[in-house]
Amino acid sequence: LPLSERKLIERITRLASARSAKLPLIRTGIGDDCAVLRPPPGQELLLTTDFSLEGIHFRREWHPPNLVGHRCLARGLSDIAAMGGKPLAAFLSLGLPTDLPQSWVDGFFTGMLALARQFGVALPGGDLAQSPVQGKYPGRVLADIMVVGAVPVGKAVLRSGARPGDRIYLTGSLGAPAAVVSALYAGGKVSGKDRRLMQPSPRVAVGIFLRQRGLAQAMIDVSDGLSTDLSHICESSRVSAEIVSESLPRGTFGGQPVSLEMALHGGEDYQLLFTARPHARIPRSIAGVPVTEIGRIIRATTKRRMFLIHNGRRQVLPVRGWEHFTRGT
Amino acid sequence: LPLSERKLIERITRLASARSAKLPLIRTGIGDDCAVLRPPPGQELLLTTDFSLEGIHFRREWHPPNLVGHRCLARGLSDIAAMGGKPLAAFLSLGLPTDLPQSWVDGFFTGMLALARQFGVALPGGDLAQSPVQGKYPGRVLADIMVVGAVPVGKAVLRSGARPGDRIYLTGSLGAPAAVVSALYAGGKVSGKDRRLMQPSPRVAVGIFLRQRGLAQAMIDVSDGLSTDLSHICESSRVSAEIVSESLPRGTFGGQPVSLEMALHGGEDYQLLFTARPHARIPRSIAGVPVTEIGRIIRATTKRRMFLIHNGRRQVLPVRGWEHFTRGT
Repeated sequence: LPLSERKLIERITRLASARSAKLPLIRTGIGDDCAVLRPPPGQELLLTTDFSLEGIHFRREWHPPNLVGHRCLARGLSDIAAMGGKPLAAFLSLGLPTDLPQSWVDGFFTGMLALARQFGVALPGGDLAQSPVQGKYPGRVLADIMVVGAVPVGKAVLRSGARPGDRIYLTGSLGAPAAVVSALYAGGKVSGKDRRLMQPSPRVAVGIFLRQRGLAQAMIDVSDGLSTDLSHICESSRVSAEIVSESLPRGTFGGQPVSLEMALHGGEDYQLLFTARPHARIPRSIAGVPVTEIGRIIRATTKRRMFLIHNGRRQVLPVRGWEHFTRGT
Repeated sequence: LPLSERKLIERITRLASARSAKLPLIRTGIGDDCAVLRPPPGQELLLTTDFSLEGIHFRREWHPPNLVGHRCLARGLSDIAAMGGKPLAAFLSLGLPTDLPQSWVDGFFTGMLALARQFGVALPGGDLAQSPVQGKYPGRVLADIMVVGAVPVGKAVLRSGARPGDRIYLTGSLGAPAAVVSALYAGGKVSGKDRRLMQPSPRVAVGIFLRQRGLAQAMIDVSDGLSTDLSHICESSRVSAEIVSESLPRGTFGGQPVSLEMALHGGEDYQLLFTARPHARIPRSIAGVPVTEIGRIIRATTKRRMFLIHNGRRQVLPVRGWEHFTRGT
């Protein structure tokens, strides 16, 4: 790493402070023991932390540095969106291998800070460390993002509010990001345009819209695959669910719609999955993002299973979210 | 790792929820997209994040798992203490190698949760991941702790409040933890009792006492070594400082006081370093911890250097905080 820790912190501070200074929320930025935040009155705070580990969540040979920085923050923003919250600030812990080019670090922050700017999020603190060396290996890029958001007191949309009879809705489409990763695993060529399918847009505006109008009863972001994340809603709400395969909006990769398998279990989508009462009027598009009804919540079965209606037949939908990056590394 | 991620999360939730449930601050714990915190009225929030990376901040062969868990949280609590704040909640991101015994994970949480209980800190969320494999190496333990604290609005003790004429004070003694690490590096035997010198007690009660009485003008915790951390106060406050070597309280290791070198640059002490106006009455002991005057703040010199009065002669005190664990790994 060409820059010393001290110089790197100075550079990050310069990059980040332009935003932080504008936010009344932040009272002290990088350069003290803690950041000081003044919580907005009448609001509760949302906190979420997400790892982005090289070799687990991304690969340097597949993901350019600005995409890694973007995704690192997007993971946290998506969690805030899934509570119906507004993101306020992000804190980054970053472990860097000694042989990492400075240009990689700069690219990482360019991607992260562009997304932060888009959502008005400050970056008032964090931690820097050298990544541990292993034998001849110089270490991995290790990032951990903590995002703080706000929501009016008592209004956070939880996973536990789904009731039998609720309709299940999804923003955007599923499976394209996982299809890209799958192609990269298989050693296939992936165009630059298709690589951008791995760059999620956190659905913050949709989450806030649904929360403000009281439309979503239970909500989660789809990061581990629809089957896994829907199962979390079912467990928290003590219900079962039924998905109609024909209604699932599938993403497009390489000019083709992705397989049903990818849509059901793929992961990395960062779409919002939510339930609404049967009489609720859910717009077909919210903040420019299409919203599709994909199934319904049913009374809990004995084993609290999920079901898939496929070609007119009902079958058990297994929990089989994509264990991304863990197989081949 | 004998337990699946799901089972591990269930176990952590059980361990942590007993505490979380008692705190009105925490509205939703582990098991949703975010934790929801209701900030105490009239308070600002303090946020800090600290890595604890195997091979950088600890070694599994030197540090038993409960000590690693204790230190991981203590790092964050110490940052809250250095602002005069009260810690409220901690969030843990934990990356685990696949070959890690479950007993190690249990020991880690035992150590962390015992310290959390001591300070009334909840553990309402976090993230779990597999640690990236490198070649034949199964990965390292990667922990990142984020601690949230509170302080009355506008009352956080910053690094920037020191003025020429201020006296410089220190809690406890310096150098013993670094002396232990140094002995372990050298391959020496270290008794179980001496190993406990590596288990810091965050000075939360001292920090709150000083803040409540308005005694501390600038404060920092000594984690990277006195010379490095004092230089942070000098830079933030735009002053210089003069330390009297004879007044430095040195810790004891192996029955001997540690060297001046260790006391000045050792690190890992997690004591509080603060300045107070010359007329301020600072007790010799606060919350059972000795407090010692070790020098004074002076007008900034041209290069904003620090000085050491040693054997009646004034010399430049270089910034040479211990770069712990990075040399031999």
